[in-house]
Amino acid sequence: MNAAAQTFDTQLRRCADQVTACLEALLSDAVAPDEIARPPALLAAMRHGVLNGGKRLRPFLVMESTALFGGDAHAAIRVAAALECVHCYSLVHDDLPAMDDDDLRRGQPTVHIAYGEANAILAGDSLLTLAFDILAGPETTLPDAVKTALVLALARASGLGGMAGGQALDLAAETAAPDEQGIVTLQAMKTGALIRFACEAGAIVSGTGAEDRARLRQFGERIGRAFQLADDLLDLKADARTMGKATGKDEARGKATLVARRGTDWAEAELARLVAEASALLSPYGDAAETLIDAAAFVANRDH
Amino acid sequence: MNAAAQTFDTQLRRCADQVTACLEALLSDAVAPDEIARPPALLAAMRHGVLNGGKRLRPFLVMESTALFGGDAHAAIRVAAALECVHCYSLVHDDLPAMDDDDLRRGQPTVHIAYGEANAILAGDSLLTLAFDILAGPETTLPDAVKTALVLALARASGLGGMAGGQALDLAAETAAPDEQGIVTLQAMKTGALIRFACEAGAIVSGTGAEDRARLRQFGERIGRAFQLADDLLDLKADARTMGKATGKDEARGKATLVARRGTDWAEAELARLVAEASALLSPYGDAAETLIDAAAFVANRDH
Repeated sequence: MNAAAQTFDTQLRRCADQVTACLEALLSDAVAPDEIARPPALLAAMRHGVLNGGKRLRPFLVMESTALFGGDAHAAIRVAAALECVHCYSLVHDDLPAMDDDDLRRGQPTVHIAYGEANAILAGDSLLTLAFDILAGPETTLPDAVKTALVLALARASGLGGMAGGQALDLAAETAAPDEQGIVTLQAMKTGALIRFACEAGAIVSGTGAEDRARLRQFGERIGRAFQLADDLLDLKADARTMGKATGKDEARGKATLVARRGTDWAEAELARLVAEASALLSPYGDAAETLIDAAAFVANRDH
Repeated sequence: MNAAAQTFDTQLRRCADQVTACLEALLSDAVAPDEIARPPALLAAMRHGVLNGGKRLRPFLVMESTALFGGDAHAAIRVAAALECVHCYSLVHDDLPAMDDDDLRRGQPTVHIAYGEANAILAGDSLLTLAFDILAGPETTLPDAVKTALVLALARASGLGGMAGGQALDLAAETAAPDEQGIVTLQAMKTGALIRFACEAGAIVSGTGAEDRARLRQFGERIGRAFQLADDLLDLKADARTMGKATGKDEARGKATLVARRGTDWAEAELARLVAEASALLSPYGDAAETLIDAAAFVANRDH
């Protein structure tokens, strides 16, 4: 790892620690105002789903995009924690037997294996609900207009027309392979929408103008596509290594990816193109955008 | 049905029609701003879950509590629709095989029977997300501070410390019967919290003072308890009729209810007491509270 990568890695870890501490405090056994009780089994399942050693990439993007505009760093941690609740709820539900049926995540039993399927469904539901609780709560010290904008943007990125819709398309793709445009739409929804929100969130938190917001949104859109391409490439490479042939888990499940269709050379060129576009979008901000540009490279080149 | 009951029934239906029309518009196939696409199967599953001929009791309480304070009736319909999305998502998830495993609801196949389990999970997730989308959206013409308060109150009523937590306690009660205080907590969370929110919402929407809000909250708390008692009584009576003995579905599942423990005479007296308390709480508002007081009696005396 070179010096720049090491610095980036340190920054990513520092952010992860801050967001994890915030989530840890939110998911203590202390009952919040207007709550009646916190049932221990459900709380434990939620904690298992969200306090699991994730890289916290989306939170990092929220905090760095906020820093770019000099926004409130404390509030950004809370917004980042809210976004991570949505991301983790989606993993808990995606792992369920009726969905991807995964027993392990990051080497640990998935929530439904550890706490049962009913608690896993409810833990996902409660993490999703908590996300909006955090955004609207009094400890998120932002103007009400900003909170409202964040709630709306996060809901649009997460629901029927965003992440959840993308998961529905992904499940449908197992029985009827989509065409290339279908794959692009599926991926923009399933993984792209939340990453785009993460980048846009900093502009919303900071209350900067519509032009900045649009620019960060476009940046996030490129990062989202790069993230998915890198993921598909990693899957293909991992399986080529472990199985001795280029048949990935996605392919085995009948899920078409752009990498499978267009090949790894195309994918690597496309990744480089997306990182260059993302960097160019932030050129008006000069050196202040350095960490976000590093993040784009990290997303494209990560090896796990 | 006497004249007063007929009038109430007409008002309830009119409200149900308005909220259903609002939900119908929200769940059209038109893609909203910032959405990428609306996958047809997921949209159909969501519509099945929410456009199902419900009585819309919670929406009615939102609209009538708003009317009590002269709040914005159009905004109240949107808040009512948001609340109904949360209520209906909870039914979709509660019906899942891993939860209550019900095939029928209101005589129709449940969402997972009609659209598959994966789509039912995602439809519930997306209805929950849509609730916050509606509250924060620009078409809900309320001040941002009011929207933020609504988002927070709905999230607290719905999540870990409210409805979802109550469902977790209810599932746990199948294996370890709770004591009476445990049943009271379980019911206050599972059904009480959303009904309480419905009544409190009118005060929030109207921007009236803390005293009015506390009063409506207490009113809602009484209605919530009455609702659950009436439900438990109905279950007992229905089974006594169909099975020729006083063994209800709840009892068969090992779920303790207050009615099963204390008997129907106690339950009927308690219902009357709750309705009287609820009515007394609204006495400062005079005739303006008549419809809400009718609603309390409706909740206590309903026969289905």
